[in-house]
Amino acid sequence: MDIIYILDLIGTFAFAVSGTISGTEKKLDLFGGAVIAFVTAIGGGTLRDLLIGSRPVHWITDLNYSYAIFLAIILSYLLKASILKYKKTMFLFDAIGIGIFTIIGVQKTLSFGLMPIIAIMMGTISAVFGGVIRDILCNRIPSILRKEIYATACVIGAILFLILDCFLLNMNVTISITILTIIVIRIFAIKKGWSLPVLY
Amino acid sequence: MDIIYILDLIGTFAFAVSGTISGTEKKLDLFGGAVIAFVTAIGGGTLRDLLIGSRPVHWITDLNYSYAIFLAIILSYLLKASILKYKKTMFLFDAIGIGIFTIIGVQKTLSFGLMPIIAIMMGTISAVFGGVIRDILCNRIPSILRKEIYATACVIGAILFLILDCFLLNMNVTISITILTIIVIRIFAIKKGWSLPVLY
Amino acid sequence: MDIIYILDLIGTFAFAVSGTISGTEKKLDLFGGAVIAFVTAIGGGTLRDLLIGSRPVHWITDLNYSYAIFLAIILSYLLKASILKYKKTMFLFDAIGIGIFTIIGVQKTLSFGLMPIIAIMMGTISAVFGGVIRDILCNRIPSILRKEIYATACVIGAILFLILDCFLLNMNVTISITILTIIVIRIFAIKKGWSLPVLY
Repeated sequence: MDIIYILDLIGTFAFAVSGTISGTEKKLDLFGGAVIAFVTAIGGGTLRDLLIGSRPVHWITDLNYSYAIFLAIILSYLLKASILKYKKTMFLFDAIGIGIFTIIGVQKTLSFGLMPIIAIMMGTISAVFGGVIRDILCNRIPSILRKEIYATACVIGAILFLILDCFLLNMNVTISITILTIIVIRIFAIKKGWSLPVLY
Repeated sequence: MDIIYILDLIGTFAFAVSGTISGTEKKLDLFGGAVIAFVTAIGGGTLRDLLIGSRPVHWITDLNYSYAIFLAIILSYLLKASILKYKKTMFLFDAIGIGIFTIIGVQKTLSFGLMPIIAIMMGTISAVFGGVIRDILCNRIPSILRKEIYATACVIGAILFLILDCFLLNMNVTISITILTIIVIRIFAIKKGWSLPVLY
Repeated sequence: MDIIYILDLIGTFAFAVSGTISGTEKKLDLFGGAVIAFVTAIGGGTLRDLLIGSRPVHWITDLNYSYAIFLAIILSYLLKASILKYKKTMFLFDAIGIGIFTIIGVQKTLSFGLMPIIAIMMGTISAVFGGVIRDILCNRIPSILRKEIYATACVIGAILFLILDCFLLNMNVTISITILTIIVIRIFAIKKGWSLPVLY
């Protein structure tokens, strides 16, 4: 539980960094950049909480999420030049973020007594929806709808979690394996240029 | 009640088909097309449930909605060529969908003890908002905001439902008449090219 | 309390007018214009209510909000020519709206026992999010993300409210001062062309 919580804050921080950087491309002002950072970091978990009926949403009663985001925004502004240089680091942060958020979303949905197939959907929504809102605000077609293996990695990781959850006793092992699986799929997808077929 | 439930699944299926087809125009990948199908099919009912405070949203605890959508996606992919040829069939499916969803939305809102004017709004939102989210995700101005008689048909059907509900005893008759009215208005609107005045 | 309620309806009315006018630029039809008016007027408060877990959202059980919006839409259609001539009046209405909505949002959030930093965010969301949805529906990058001092005025007003709330006994004085502060900051920001630095 404790490890999950720390991972959650790390994922939030990572997404907030990538959100802030994303704002710089559209010439947003300081406030606009901060908004984009926020919605990227908490958008997915917020939609999941609204859909499964968890009230109020997770970051409203625990300020650590907000602090993680503020820290990410400030660091991003200060270290912008360096961050942009290390796009690969950014990408890795994002991959870690979706891995963590998927598994946390699956777990929370199951803890509400909902069905596994819904848990897979909610895990994926937790991981990718923040990026979808970010893209809508920046007036782009959400990249996850037409780019490489992204949400697919979350779906695979979520299914693996459900399978391992039936067999393994140690939850921490299950969590670690599934998060790592998502991250590894993402890295391979980028390196190998994997993508899903496009609809004509 | 039973008939309403089956109608609801049919409406969900119809909207998922039209959503998947819509995704093909923007060159989305398989996953992107599935997401568009989902939000088109459940977006309106989800917003209605969030606004009237129905927790959790309707499709979370009843997997039949998800199954109807998955079936629609698979069939759409397999039969794409034929579906695109019969655009009139598509349009009819969509008209049936908004008819059903409007009346279901009105009923559910009334069953929460809310006022008739709110029921009219929620019926209309149930019917049209899935399409609005679809258009936002595809980076278009939602077509219902500037095209033909669409939401107007829902509003008329919802008002008719409230009136008939005061006079008729048999709910099934009321439901059938009002759903048919919405469908007929839509068909005439398209055939005759009806539209609302544009704002200058 | 009574004054706050009347102010809330005035703010709703003001935002609905600005929403309707905004719709005319995108050649929406009558229904589309009405939808834009609605989401501009109630969008911010609706998101706030969903996030803090206030069920159902505020305008669902109190029709006065809907009446204020309908009145605003009808008047906007009738007086369109005059309204467009007096853009400064429009701007003043909008400034009054965000002032009122910010403080109401802060108060409501505190009344749910949530923390001051969340209250500041929710106040700002109440004030600006309706405009964000309006811009998304009109397929624009939300103007608050890159234009002048707008949300910043809300944040300053919300912080001032929290500070005065600790020292002053009379709530009405606190409310009046903070709403006026937001309005004055907005007016100065426009007159002087204040803006936040853009991110590169």
